[in-house]
Amino acid sequence: MISSKLPKMFYGGDYNPEQWDHETHLEDLRMFKLAGIDMATINVFSWALIQPDEVTYNFEYLDQLIDRLYENGVYICLATSTAAHPAWMAKNYPDVLRVDADGRKRKFGGRHNSCPNSPTYRKYSEIIADKLAERYKDHPAVLVWHISNEYGGDCYCENCEKAFRVYLKKRYQTIEQVNKAWNTNFWGHTFYDWDEIVLPSNLSEHWGHNSSSFQGISLDYSRFNSDSMLECYLLEYHAIKKHIPDSVVTTNLMGFFKQLDYFKWAKYMDIVSWDSYPGLATPISYTAMAHDLMRGLKDGLPFMLMEQTPSQQNWQPYNSLKRPGVMRLWSYQSVAHGADTVMFFQLRRSVGACEKYHGAVIEHAGHENTRVFREVAELGKELQNLGDTTLDARVQSRVAIVFDWDNWWAIEKSSGPTVALKYVEQIHKYYSAFFHRNIQVDIVSVDSDISSYDLLLAPVLYMVKPGFAAKLEQFVAAGGTFLTTFFSGIVNEHDLVTTGGYPGELRNLLGIWVEEIDALLPEQKNSIVLKETLGALEGVYECGMLCDLLHSEGAEVIAEYGEDFYQGMPALTRNTFGQGQAWYVASDPDNIFLEGLLAELAAEKNIKPLLETPQGVEVSARTKDGLTYLFVMNHNASPQSYDLGNSSVRELLTGTDYTGQISIEARGVHIFERTS
Amino acid sequence: MISSKLPKMFYGGDYNPEQWDHETHLEDLRMFKLAGIDMATINVFSWALIQPDEVTYNFEYLDQLIDRLYENGVYICLATSTAAHPAWMAKNYPDVLRVDADGRKRKFGGRHNSCPNSPTYRKYSEIIADKLAERYKDHPAVLVWHISNEYGGDCYCENCEKAFRVYLKKRYQTIEQVNKAWNTNFWGHTFYDWDEIVLPSNLSEHWGHNSSSFQGISLDYSRFNSDSMLECYLLEYHAIKKHIPDSVVTTNLMGFFKQLDYFKWAKYMDIVSWDSYPGLATPISYTAMAHDLMRGLKDGLPFMLMEQTPSQQNWQPYNSLKRPGVMRLWSYQSVAHGADTVMFFQLRRSVGACEKYHGAVIEHAGHENTRVFREVAELGKELQNLGDTTLDARVQSRVAIVFDWDNWWAIEKSSGPTVALKYVEQIHKYYSAFFHRNIQVDIVSVDSDISSYDLLLAPVLYMVKPGFAAKLEQFVAAGGTFLTTFFSGIVNEHDLVTTGGYPGELRNLLGIWVEEIDALLPEQKNSIVLKETLGALEGVYECGMLCDLLHSEGAEVIAEYGEDFYQGMPALTRNTFGQGQAWYVASDPDNIFLEGLLAELAAEKNIKPLLETPQGVEVSARTKDGLTYLFVMNHNASPQSYDLGNSSVRELLTGTDYTGQISIEARGVHIFERTS
Amino acid sequence: MISSKLPKMFYGGDYNPEQWDHETHLEDLRMFKLAGIDMATINVFSWALIQPDEVTYNFEYLDQLIDRLYENGVYICLATSTAAHPAWMAKNYPDVLRVDADGRKRKFGGRHNSCPNSPTYRKYSEIIADKLAERYKDHPAVLVWHISNEYGGDCYCENCEKAFRVYLKKRYQTIEQVNKAWNTNFWGHTFYDWDEIVLPSNLSEHWGHNSSSFQGISLDYSRFNSDSMLECYLLEYHAIKKHIPDSVVTTNLMGFFKQLDYFKWAKYMDIVSWDSYPGLATPISYTAMAHDLMRGLKDGLPFMLMEQTPSQQNWQPYNSLKRPGVMRLWSYQSVAHGADTVMFFQLRRSVGACEKYHGAVIEHAGHENTRVFREVAELGKELQNLGDTTLDARVQSRVAIVFDWDNWWAIEKSSGPTVALKYVEQIHKYYSAFFHRNIQVDIVSVDSDISSYDLLLAPVLYMVKPGFAAKLEQFVAAGGTFLTTFFSGIVNEHDLVTTGGYPGELRNLLGIWVEEIDALLPEQKNSIVLKETLGALEGVYECGMLCDLLHSEGAEVIAEYGEDFYQGMPALTRNTFGQGQAWYVASDPDNIFLEGLLAELAAEKNIKPLLETPQGVEVSARTKDGLTYLFVMNHNASPQSYDLGNSSVRELLTGTDYTGQISIEARGVHIFERTS
Repeated sequence: MISSKLPKMFYGGDYNPEQWDHETHLEDLRMFKLAGIDMATINVFSWALIQPDEVTYNFEYLDQLIDRLYENGVYICLATSTAAHPAWMAKNYPDVLRVDADGRKRKFGGRHNSCPNSPTYRKYSEIIADKLAERYKDHPAVLVWHISNEYGGDCYCENCEKAFRVYLKKRYQTIEQVNKAWNTNFWGHTFYDWDEIVLPSNLSEHWGHNSSSFQGISLDYSRFNSDSMLECYLLEYHAIKKHIPDSVVTTNLMGFFKQLDYFKWAKYMDIVSWDSYPGLATPISYTAMAHDLMRGLKDGLPFMLMEQTPSQQNWQPYNSLKRPGVMRLWSYQSVAHGADTVMFFQLRRSVGACEKYHGAVIEHAGHENTRVFREVAELGKELQNLGDTTLDARVQSRVAIVFDWDNWWAIEKSSGPTVALKYVEQIHKYYSAFFHRNIQVDIVSVDSDISSYDLLLAPVLYMVKPGFAAKLEQFVAAGGTFLTTFFSGIVNEHDLVTTGGYPGELRNLLGIWVEEIDALLPEQKNSIVLKETLGALEGVYECGMLCDLLHSEGAEVIAEYGEDFYQGMPALTRNTFGQGQAWYVASDPDNIFLEGLLAELAAEKNIKPLLETPQGVEVSARTKDGLTYLFVMNHNASPQSYDLGNSSVRELLTGTDYTGQISIEARGVHIFERTS
Repeated sequence: MISSKLPKMFYGGDYNPEQWDHETHLEDLRMFKLAGIDMATINVFSWALIQPDEVTYNFEYLDQLIDRLYENGVYICLATSTAAHPAWMAKNYPDVLRVDADGRKRKFGGRHNSCPNSPTYRKYSEIIADKLAERYKDHPAVLVWHISNEYGGDCYCENCEKAFRVYLKKRYQTIEQVNKAWNTNFWGHTFYDWDEIVLPSNLSEHWGHNSSSFQGISLDYSRFNSDSMLECYLLEYHAIKKHIPDSVVTTNLMGFFKQLDYFKWAKYMDIVSWDSYPGLATPISYTAMAHDLMRGLKDGLPFMLMEQTPSQQNWQPYNSLKRPGVMRLWSYQSVAHGADTVMFFQLRRSVGACEKYHGAVIEHAGHENTRVFREVAELGKELQNLGDTTLDARVQSRVAIVFDWDNWWAIEKSSGPTVALKYVEQIHKYYSAFFHRNIQVDIVSVDSDISSYDLLLAPVLYMVKPGFAAKLEQFVAAGGTFLTTFFSGIVNEHDLVTTGGYPGELRNLLGIWVEEIDALLPEQKNSIVLKETLGALEGVYECGMLCDLLHSEGAEVIAEYGEDFYQGMPALTRNTFGQGQAWYVASDPDNIFLEGLLAELAAEKNIKPLLETPQGVEVSARTKDGLTYLFVMNHNASPQSYDLGNSSVRELLTGTDYTGQISIEARGVHIFERTS
Repeated sequence: MISSKLPKMFYGGDYNPEQWDHETHLEDLRMFKLAGIDMATINVFSWALIQPDEVTYNFEYLDQLIDRLYENGVYICLATSTAAHPAWMAKNYPDVLRVDADGRKRKFGGRHNSCPNSPTYRKYSEIIADKLAERYKDHPAVLVWHISNEYGGDCYCENCEKAFRVYLKKRYQTIEQVNKAWNTNFWGHTFYDWDEIVLPSNLSEHWGHNSSSFQGISLDYSRFNSDSMLECYLLEYHAIKKHIPDSVVTTNLMGFFKQLDYFKWAKYMDIVSWDSYPGLATPISYTAMAHDLMRGLKDGLPFMLMEQTPSQQNWQPYNSLKRPGVMRLWSYQSVAHGADTVMFFQLRRSVGACEKYHGAVIEHAGHENTRVFREVAELGKELQNLGDTTLDARVQSRVAIVFDWDNWWAIEKSSGPTVALKYVEQIHKYYSAFFHRNIQVDIVSVDSDISSYDLLLAPVLYMVKPGFAAKLEQFVAAGGTFLTTFFSGIVNEHDLVTTGGYPGELRNLLGIWVEEIDALLPEQKNSIVLKETLGALEGVYECGMLCDLLHSEGAEVIAEYGEDFYQGMPALTRNTFGQGQAWYVASDPDNIFLEGLLAELAAEKNIKPLLETPQGVEVSARTKDGLTYLFVMNHNASPQSYDLGNSSVRELLTGTDYTGQISIEARGVHIFERTS
């Protein structure tokens, strides 16, 4: 638990002083104090610096840096430096260089550049982690260990190919099992020997951006690649734990990042941390959902906001400034959703290379008289005042949405029925229907304990993993409300279709049979016609993208299609199953329908908004020791007002007691403490 | 003649039972009976299965399959399995793997994956064809031989490079002739030795999608590549013929498929067969034109519809269901244009890999109670009733359109004058002007006998091959009407410009000289102004893309340009030549102009519509033994009516006699039998 | 000085008779006479022809060609033939073949195809230049030497990689200096050995179209690549000079061509020559600006228009004909801006390969009765009449715009703040504001002598090279008016940010501090609000793309932002510095604002238009021996009129004297001679 390390939210960020001289270092310390900064993530990219060749290690620089920071009240999140290999390593041991999906051997350059199955990389990354842990295991400054940085990418080299075959041997034991799992009798792909299997790449099964001729091998490659990087992480993890069993070890994740199955990774992270970089077009609800995913990785435990920009990014096409107040607002948003730290990339702006136009706490001007620095310092003061109030508090949700990486990969590797289907977009559609009503949602995996929820959604549950259908039946039988959608229950964990009728293993629970799946053109639409009013829903709503043509096998038909040759067929069904209900949304409806439907489902379970607020005013809550901290966040550029209710509650940032109708300034934040 | 094999249209399709267990096989047989299926294409992708290594062949599986099907009334279209090489072959003999246009050696995966000049592929594909023919030569079930599958793709490996040089030696004898044909003095490309010639690829002469610095070498590569695959086909073809001289051998073509010169291939096919997969945006007239091309490949002989989807495709971006009735409608459309079979891909849907979302006769549900199966079974019954009525009947056209693969390649490899010019689009524009008036058209090659036609069109006859100009002059002199367009008569078979004035060899016939060719921007237009009314044409029509600036050298100027600095120059000319007329359309006109013009040309030759019908109601006819079978097909989603005339005719599907104004249901089909 | 070679403008162009037979050669000579052609550029692509192997050289063909042309009054611009290597060289010495940015070894084909660091290419290109110079040094026909052709492209082979390291050693002496210049402590890129450095390519630091992870190495690669090709040029240059010290040596440039730093190249060119190929969408002002850049390369010396098309291009998507009169108009435009020749690509059209649809003086028709030939011949006659009147005359400008290749590279390799910023577009915006007012502009380098100008603009002076800030201060202190814009003064010559506050080294001169830089979305806008009227400017104008948030440090605030949170901050400032003024435009304004602002700045310096003319009527002037040649060019498709003033002036093309209001025909040209 990170809250035991410091009695307040860590405040700071990435710090790369190796790019600066001693005089600047001293100036940094002065400014950190001004800003209330007490945590620095260091050594993220210093591998080449601290290890100039195979046998030499220079830790003096790090020794001095850590001491200097510590003496000035700044604690350390110590990175292991293995996020980019040294140039000498690339030259002497080309196995560290990746081969890309087009079969091109990379040369030295960029980041994320090490092959995860490189013997050299694995060897030297483990050694450096070991040496760092041994050296700093007793240093009081080091509170968190940060392995590598933003793992990602993929590799198609010979070492990966060999490792993939080993992975498959472990997974399938026999080549016959592989043939069966991948349905290799299709297109005559039968394998007789493990060595006949090659990595699925643009030179073999892949084409276009994300398409595969054989989903089975591609799916296993995605799993293998995620696991390969996890093995790299674990080598370092264990090297640190060997020296410091109670260390807090993490690596910085990236929200809905497709390549890595973070649910699997989180098992080996003492605390989840992540880097939040909303783009200009990112909806607020999407950022909230990403925070909730990060919180869900470890079943609701608080996480670290490891990186955010104080102001500007550099890698968007158009890098607008964060408007005044936005950095503070978004910082509190992350806290409201479960963050126990507020940290930045980075503390001082680089003068050269590709991130020099990325914002920093200390800008190129180099002094404290900047808007950005002032905002950072004001937030630092507030966090200081908040102290440990919200630390380790939990979010309590009665609604959960299932998210699954295997399902993501499988849906989007599918050839047909439509390229328009994006899994995370669908998840977000359902998520935001709750978000806009200030109803809190947990994002859970198929392995999570779902028994405590009242309402469970699994939009586009295309792949049903072994045991999950039974788990859902149990959930509903016990009284839960379950909802899923079109293109669900289609395949098993190998992406092999469950025959006999869609939605396969979910057919019994849902009481329906889907006979056909129609894919609509982008401009093509159908409609959902309610048979009678359902909560606020009545009449006709638009739908599109995919339309399941289904038959009820016991489910009640709540709405029908309004058009085309399947006019009158069910578009929304509800099946009573044991004590609960299982809903099926047969097409992709408009948001008004969706918000009405989910409001009704919530209402039936007596799930109420945390607060009623105007559009763009988000509400989220964390709870600890019988107290609830209610975060009200105005994402609008204009002041808004809302009704707090009759009982007086204390607002923590101002220390004022409020009641009734109150106003919140543009981009303002209120934190109320009330008894749960 | 395939009609001698079975006294009805073959009905069935691709069948890949190796993906299923015995129990499913038995179920398949039951359902085939229900659907009236009597033909299965098997062994398309079983190479790896029947040949697990260099020396072992396992035919037991095939033996049993063929017997089982035959015993259940299902005949066999036996594929040779060489459409995808086994994984072991790729591992042991990398020469079977292609090198792509970017110089990347492929790895095992996908389809169409064998290098056509691979010694290993050629050796083993010939052996397997030989063994199959030897084994099944006397089996009564095997009616058709199906070599490989959908040949296509290209390769740039060393074996292909060497074979290309041999190809060139045969074609040109001396390196001086190559230099001349390719105009290599341009850009100093002079070759002194055959070995200096490299394949034209993205690493040498090609850039962008379809552009080449040297059209000559690229054109020869296209010819070479088509011929290389044809050689592969012929190895198998002769291996079969050695054992079964009277076998019916085919390979499934793909309509307007750019890479292969099907006119050349068809010479070596006992019957043409093809796979018809209209996309969502494909006009009905385009599908009809493709059928007519397939029929034209062997001078009007009936062809096999080898594949179509019963319902959905999987490789379109958006894979909509075929609406009720559409599968039947399109099946009859193919018959109306010359098909003597109706076959599907595939009989049972796969559960894994990239075609699992492609429709099938037996869907994932696995039983007969599906819309798709019902439609298939109904059609099966109808075809049973039709028997051999239409088998081997011919389409009789007085209009022909010239299509030429070399011309296609040359036009679209051209650098300038415009990227907007697409050969097949132009062909389709002229074709559909007849199609919409229910006038039948043959698609012919430059080698076809054209003397029997009244009206011959050769839109964009950019390349004039040796002798073709004289052939055209003879055709017109004898009284024929000929029409060609802008960008015609420009080059010879080497893509070398015929100097002295465009349209080169056609100048005498057309009586014009084209001085310049203006390319218009997409949004830019000019107009065609009729000098006097011509049939239904009068006044002003829009044109664009390319505008030839031409002078009459004897031709009558029928219309002029209405705008720009060449206002008043001829835009449409007619030259009287011997007994006939030669027309020139100098720009790309709107469809109204085109339909008016072609209607007039047809009228002058007394060519009349088969029937007058509302828009979207297609009419086509086949003739046999003095009887004409008139197919009326309503492609609209609503009923239509048309006038059948005063004499009573029998409709074959209903057995009813009709006369006068009659109605046809949405997506309905009428087949009338009348004396020719 | 080229004017000493022939007492009139050279008129002719590229001539590739090796593609034709002797009869055609004789016909060419006849037509050259008809067209008044007296100059032919030959031997551009004849390397393979004149050197069939390592040891054989055949100059007979050239001997005869040169004699034949000379005897017929055609002088020679003799190319060295090294623009494309022979096929035999590629086969025998693969080091001549480039490796592209994706690491792909090229094969023989295309143009610009030799690696600039290939030992073989350097050896044989030097030898051929030497042999040509030796052979023709005394031939009276050869007036100009034309090395290679349109240098360009890049290479990433091992020879280039090794040469790059040598280049770096020369530039930086120590690896520590490299690390510092490239800020390699960022992302752990520290180098310990020269051999660890690899070329920046798509396999190392580059991604997307133009992006780099390390701007420092990419910038140095751009310099290195430009220098490598310059070294190739210089090998040939010195080989020629060895034999003919007073030869006129050039190579044909391409205007704003990004890859080569032409200011550096021009030092080694006896005369600048260039190929002008405006596209369909190219503004007239852009072509004018390119001419002015070419003139600026050698501080105002006249240049050669080496190539333009007589009519059509072939490599645009849509290749429209040059409308009647346009070829003549654009020819005079080039002369008006400093050209002393009018030349074409090419004299006779090719019949094969990719330029056969590129216009030529002698078209495929082959005779003189074409519109194109007639226009060429008419211009030939006019030029004959003009004689040496304008030869060697100079353009006199009081306004200069700074252009810098390093700055171009650095701006567009930048990651952030916006992808919308294109350096040449910005230069063109400011240029065209003068152009539209008929105020002449010089394009100068940072090394040019700027002291003689009254008004100096340096839009987006992102990179400030050593000494240039001081030079600017000196210029302004002495009374000059200087203007720069947003995103200026940011970095030094290594692309390292000048810390302490933007605009860095320009801060003192401009009297401002830029705190932040906001990047706007394409559809997003802000406004510039004038505090009081400034010349014709008053009220509110639109701006966008980038908005600097700045504080005055002494500069007068002339206008402010009108919107967003930085409403009221300065948007336009003027700093009085010594005797002069330094202006800063903080955002990208609309053209009305810009034209108003620059008109005011010009007015303050009493810089007046050459003439007042309607829109689209360009005026430019050249001066010699006390006489000014005023070119008035009507780019409109309709006649226009303008006021010539009260004194009578002679128009040279008609020999008429004009005064007062006169008319100019559509696409017409007037050349007035008046005393300066």
